[in-house]
Amino acid sequence: MAGNVLPQPVQRLIDEFARLPGIGPKSASRLTFYLLRAADEHAFALAEALRDLKERTHFCSICFNITEKEPCLICQDAGRDQTLLCVVEEPLDVVALERTHAFNGRYHVLHGAISPVEGIGPEDLRIAELVQRVEQGGFNEIIIATNPTLEGDSTALYLQRRLAGHGVKLRSLARGLSVGGDLEYTDEITLRRALEGRQDLH
Amino acid sequence: MAGNVLPQPVQRLIDEFARLPGIGPKSASRLTFYLLRAADEHAFALAEALRDLKERTHFCSICFNITEKEPCLICQDAGRDQTLLCVVEEPLDVVALERTHAFNGRYHVLHGAISPVEGIGPEDLRIAELVQRVEQGGFNEIIIATNPTLEGDSTALYLQRRLAGHGVKLRSLARGLSVGGDLEYTDEITLRRALEGRQDLH
Repeated sequence: MAGNVLPQPVQRLIDEFARLPGIGPKSASRLTFYLLRAADEHAFALAEALRDLKERTHFCSICFNITEKEPCLICQDAGRDQTLLCVVEEPLDVVALERTHAFNGRYHVLHGAISPVEGIGPEDLRIAELVQRVEQGGFNEIIIATNPTLEGDSTALYLQRRLAGHGVKLRSLARGLSVGGDLEYTDEITLRRALEGRQDLH
Repeated sequence: MAGNVLPQPVQRLIDEFARLPGIGPKSASRLTFYLLRAADEHAFALAEALRDLKERTHFCSICFNITEKEPCLICQDAGRDQTLLCVVEEPLDVVALERTHAFNGRYHVLHGAISPVEGIGPEDLRIAELVQRVEQGGFNEIIIATNPTLEGDSTALYLQRRLAGHGVKLRSLARGLSVGGDLEYTDEITLRRALEGRQDLH
């Protein structure tokens, strides 16, 4: 220890943590000093998990979801509806949709949404690959399930234009009240969408 | 991917991140998906830094600061005042004090402060080792530089009692206005301490 600096391995881990999004220098120090004091196994388990992530997973060449197999198990599954495609922003969106057990088609993961503010254009997403998939034919319906945000909606609008004219039905997820939510506390845009999308009772 | 679950390496890294203090399941997911998309080197560098931290650093057997050498370079340094000791809570406090270039004695790192709320008692800190160092003699002055918090002050009071009767001068750091701070926005306790500690102008 050279007097006014931390030992190099300590400083290095602080620097590496601080490179992660949402972790500032203070959090990075806090995490490093926590691990210094924690059992060795804790740091080693994290190190191994990091290596495994990169060595054992990759993106499916068809749908770009994360997978250990190539192609991924969903793309391989002949029991799923091959004519139905759901386009999502992130792999976690696939997890969320699978949890509903209400979708039996296939997926396409864009890996983000168009965002001029963050400098993310269509060419930074898996949109060319999506268009190619659709052009190869076989899909009857495509659900564009981007997030209900400005970026997600812009991306949906862009995709709607790019995918038009292929004889495929383009749909979006319904907007409305959250189940278990409270009408009184629902924001006005969601409430307006819920009104516009009002349905018959049966 | 088994339909509704993430690939095991992804889930595992999320779990490992979520074990860290201050990182919840959402942040853990965010970090994992960031690393999935980032260059391999980023995850590998973090993994290596984690291993290095545990394999190359340990606590100095004399002062309990973090070090790559044994004893640490400060404890080894014969040019420092061997009669002056500064007791701090954390290794980062040593870094802060060294940056001032105003202290040329040695350190003792407690690794925390007494906190009944968090269940941290004197026996969880390096206090027995401190008492032993002081009993071995050689120190003229001990600066108890715990944090100006409830826990730090309690710890200082406890140490004051434990270290009394060894013929060593016990001191604390001055409390008062922050340099560059604003009197108007100084909290009343600090301002009271600044008044109580008022000094002659010269």
